[in-house]
Amino acid sequence: MKSNIINNLNKLRALMKERNIDAYIIPTNDFHGSEYVGEYFKTRSFISGFTGSAGTCVVTTNSAGLWTDGRYFLQAEKELEGSTIDLYRSLEPGVPSIFEFLNQTLGDKGKIGFDGRVVSVDFVEELKNKLASKELEISCQEDLVDQVWENRPGISKEKAFELDIKYAGVDRVTKLNLIKEHLNKLSADLLILTSLDDIAWLFNLRGNDVACNPVLLAYAVIAKTYVKLYVNEGVLSKDLINKLNSEGISVLAYNDIYEDVKLLKDEVVVYQKNRVNYALCSLINVKKVINEVNYTTILKAVKNETEVKNAYYAHLKDGIAVTKFIYWLKTNVGKIYIDEITAADKLEEFRREQENFMGISFETIAGYKEHGAIIHYSATTESKIEVLPKSFLLVDSGGQYLEGTTDITRTISLGELTDQEKLYYTLVLKGHLALSNAVFRNGTTGGMLDILAREPLYNYGLNYNHGTGHGVGSFLNVHEGPQNISPTPRASYPFQEGMITSNEPGIYLPNEFGIRIENLVLCKKHSETNFGKFLCFDDLTLVPYDIEAIDLNVLTDVDKVLIHNYHERVYNALKDYLTIDELNWLNSIKEAI
Amino acid sequence: MKSNIINNLNKLRALMKERNIDAYIIPTNDFHGSEYVGEYFKTRSFISGFTGSAGTCVVTTNSAGLWTDGRYFLQAEKELEGSTIDLYRSLEPGVPSIFEFLNQTLGDKGKIGFDGRVVSVDFVEELKNKLASKELEISCQEDLVDQVWENRPGISKEKAFELDIKYAGVDRVTKLNLIKEHLNKLSADLLILTSLDDIAWLFNLRGNDVACNPVLLAYAVIAKTYVKLYVNEGVLSKDLINKLNSEGISVLAYNDIYEDVKLLKDEVVVYQKNRVNYALCSLINVKKVINEVNYTTILKAVKNETEVKNAYYAHLKDGIAVTKFIYWLKTNVGKIYIDEITAADKLEEFRREQENFMGISFETIAGYKEHGAIIHYSATTESKIEVLPKSFLLVDSGGQYLEGTTDITRTISLGELTDQEKLYYTLVLKGHLALSNAVFRNGTTGGMLDILAREPLYNYGLNYNHGTGHGVGSFLNVHEGPQNISPTPRASYPFQEGMITSNEPGIYLPNEFGIRIENLVLCKKHSETNFGKFLCFDDLTLVPYDIEAIDLNVLTDVDKVLIHNYHERVYNALKDYLTIDELNWLNSIKEAI
Repeated sequence: MKSNIINNLNKLRALMKERNIDAYIIPTNDFHGSEYVGEYFKTRSFISGFTGSAGTCVVTTNSAGLWTDGRYFLQAEKELEGSTIDLYRSLEPGVPSIFEFLNQTLGDKGKIGFDGRVVSVDFVEELKNKLASKELEISCQEDLVDQVWENRPGISKEKAFELDIKYAGVDRVTKLNLIKEHLNKLSADLLILTSLDDIAWLFNLRGNDVACNPVLLAYAVIAKTYVKLYVNEGVLSKDLINKLNSEGISVLAYNDIYEDVKLLKDEVVVYQKNRVNYALCSLINVKKVINEVNYTTILKAVKNETEVKNAYYAHLKDGIAVTKFIYWLKTNVGKIYIDEITAADKLEEFRREQENFMGISFETIAGYKEHGAIIHYSATTESKIEVLPKSFLLVDSGGQYLEGTTDITRTISLGELTDQEKLYYTLVLKGHLALSNAVFRNGTTGGMLDILAREPLYNYGLNYNHGTGHGVGSFLNVHEGPQNISPTPRASYPFQEGMITSNEPGIYLPNEFGIRIENLVLCKKHSETNFGKFLCFDDLTLVPYDIEAIDLNVLTDVDKVLIHNYHERVYNALKDYLTIDELNWLNSIKEAI
Repeated sequence: MKSNIINNLNKLRALMKERNIDAYIIPTNDFHGSEYVGEYFKTRSFISGFTGSAGTCVVTTNSAGLWTDGRYFLQAEKELEGSTIDLYRSLEPGVPSIFEFLNQTLGDKGKIGFDGRVVSVDFVEELKNKLASKELEISCQEDLVDQVWENRPGISKEKAFELDIKYAGVDRVTKLNLIKEHLNKLSADLLILTSLDDIAWLFNLRGNDVACNPVLLAYAVIAKTYVKLYVNEGVLSKDLINKLNSEGISVLAYNDIYEDVKLLKDEVVVYQKNRVNYALCSLINVKKVINEVNYTTILKAVKNETEVKNAYYAHLKDGIAVTKFIYWLKTNVGKIYIDEITAADKLEEFRREQENFMGISFETIAGYKEHGAIIHYSATTESKIEVLPKSFLLVDSGGQYLEGTTDITRTISLGELTDQEKLYYTLVLKGHLALSNAVFRNGTTGGMLDILAREPLYNYGLNYNHGTGHGVGSFLNVHEGPQNISPTPRASYPFQEGMITSNEPGIYLPNEFGIRIENLVLCKKHSETNFGKFLCFDDLTLVPYDIEAIDLNVLTDVDKVLIHNYHERVYNALKDYLTIDELNWLNSIKEAI
């Protein structure tokens, strides 16, 4: 029995009873719709004991449930044991969704509570829609978990800093003017911005309030006549505040935005509905709201000249680190003890040796053999296994450098492979190469390119159940929009020169092995002809593929040329930064195909 | 001066004046939204003198304009000369659209007239939208051109016939029951069907009211409790009417539907808004209308077992005819006089030799050299040129057989080619092969596959400005939905086993040459694995590619295998139906690559 969990649930139920709340919802989120959240925001983890990165807890007067997805079924089962909380395996047959559960559990009337700051407007709209047959009351003013949570970590207020123009490339005032021009075009008065990477990008600020994402907790209002930035006290230095003020930016207390938006009345307000929290939105009472993708998201995705130049440099440094790691791993496996955690640590060590390394860009996925088949595997001291001289170690990792963010996956052969392992590695590589080397017309979206990465696998009746690519920030979040590459016919955003996107096909055989190969690619102009403008990709990532895992029979001559050219490029880029042994090994890779 | 055109315009203006109509619109359409229209419906051609297949004429009190697209600029210029009608080149820079023209031309108030039976609801909605700033009156009850047109051809009332079950595969009653089940699912009462191919398919009827399309002019109402078919008198034999009646189908006069729909009141009515004419829709005054793609269109696209079996047979016959034609052309060019028209006639002759040939499925496009670059070229006695023993003849043609509809393009080399001609032919062929041999997951749409056909061209900064594929009927219209293959990120309909689609990439160099290679492909199941269900295409078309036009240096080993396998298949299929000389030639093609 997990008495602390049960005690906390009962305390929460007592608070709910005082307020006549029938069901209280605790999602995984901060006030900004962030993908990763700081310690302060881990209310769902605190109340349920389930520590995975995704899940929602619902507590009623006499039951409690936790909804999470397939990545976390095993972990959640274990962590919820003895907690009195039922596990609901989302999207599995026969398992009710949260809305279905609430429909079944509540009577004709019901009062549902949650902290309105940690859910989106979309969520509340869906809730009302799905429970339309009931007389529903919503209580969203209180964070009840806060009243239960003794010794809750404080909200993060880490020092933020200005990103030098030599990294940002474009100054704040210029960026703000672009937003103001955009507001003019929309005949709108102001933009409300709450997503942390958008704010960090727009103001050329970086912070440390969220693990792996160099952002600071902040809100912003950009009006045609003023700019307000809301941050926690002490986060910005006095000098920085003065500088911001001198540029016409008012710096206010983090929570002041909730009062300020109440004063809006005749303004035309722009915000992205699914990225602004419900509590904030419900305080805005104006005649007209324009709901669109944050314009900053689109500007941010198209890297400027400085960011592009720096991206190549960041990837050179990251390439040195990862290439050294792979050589170390291949030469030491079977000789010294290595497990999934020590391997990840060693890789981080290599990255730390690089100048301007600011930390990893997401928690390293290092999955050996069957663990490689778990798409979001994260080794724990319980789950970790030893890495032995056979089969594959899949390593998906990335670094934050002042010059840019990296994200790379290599599947590393550590000894003899089966024919199936080699065939599947080669099919994944063929798709990866086809996408990297695609030429496409201006206006093409990721939904139209995705098939290039999957076709070699499809031919064998194989597939992978994740997207092929996501946008990547410039010393910012490792996942960003608006572009992506995925097998959806729905509109995705057209590629533009300067966008950085991942190219990461894979194949996963549960309980056997997993393969994924990932480079980041920069979208560039290919040509302009009578037939229009054509774009292509340029590989940023500089780390060799695993030639020992390649089945040569499955390669075409074109594939071979592409592999050789890439390895030649990697060799030439890294050759001044490697030991003789590393260099000989890299040369042998280059010469092999 | 074209006095007949000017006289007719003035007569039309007199009628407009009597009715206070400021602008009268004459589109190219029949009452059914058909792609091709019968002689009776060629009002736009009559009033303007422009005979192209697409265009809209607008007549005002003191001017007249004709809007058409890039395919017809040259032809329209010529045909409109001296007519007092201005040519508006649609989508060219600075050229106003019809709506913009009306906005500029009409004052604050205005009355616009047209025959409501030849425009869609969508058109009228757009008209109202775009002219929202004006006080607008619409007059749609009269076909004023009819009152001007002396000796107008009568509306076509050709005999229709029943398509035998050995061709249709599924009987009428079963099809009607599927519609009724669908209405039940929608909680709707009746479906109004006005598109001619949907009606022909649903009732297993074929007719002869539209050139190349074996359809009959008809409307239909399929209700849960009754079925009504509206056709012109004499079109169906008494026996056939008796048979239909015995199956619960009432046969009524063609125009009776306009009275019948006025009686609808409490019914929930289903129709496809952009396929039902405005006049008919505006008579329907019910509480609820469901607008969706005609369910018949979806059912019709998925060919049944009988249709699939017959499609192979139709393509065998068509393959014999076209292969014989190509051999004839290659052996006679330069020896006897051949021009674009006589070539097309010769091809039709070969088709006529085949059993159950019912006519061509669209007007043959036979374009020699620079005429091949005109995508919808149709040779006239003025435009036709002699076919000589060099460069390419592009021939896009098709046949209607009781067993199915064919559509094939071959670009035929007639002598020495330039390196560029060979390279471009090979790039088009590579894209065509990549698409034909694609394997893809269930749920994939044409928008996701299109890149496979274009990628070899994109690599050289080349492209073609048309879709890659369209659905094809079974002894029905050569263009049908809902699926297509085109470079649009928007939703297109997912492929399903049994769909027949064209695969026709091309390249067009204005004033030089054009290349297009087209097969019809059947969507089939490829495999079902742990990773889901996979689909693929099977070539229906059985006509060799032009090996003399291939640049071998650009082919991969995989390309070569695909070409050889296809030619082996063509050879084996046709070998019993060719002369010794034809067979030797076909064998040499098979052995060459």
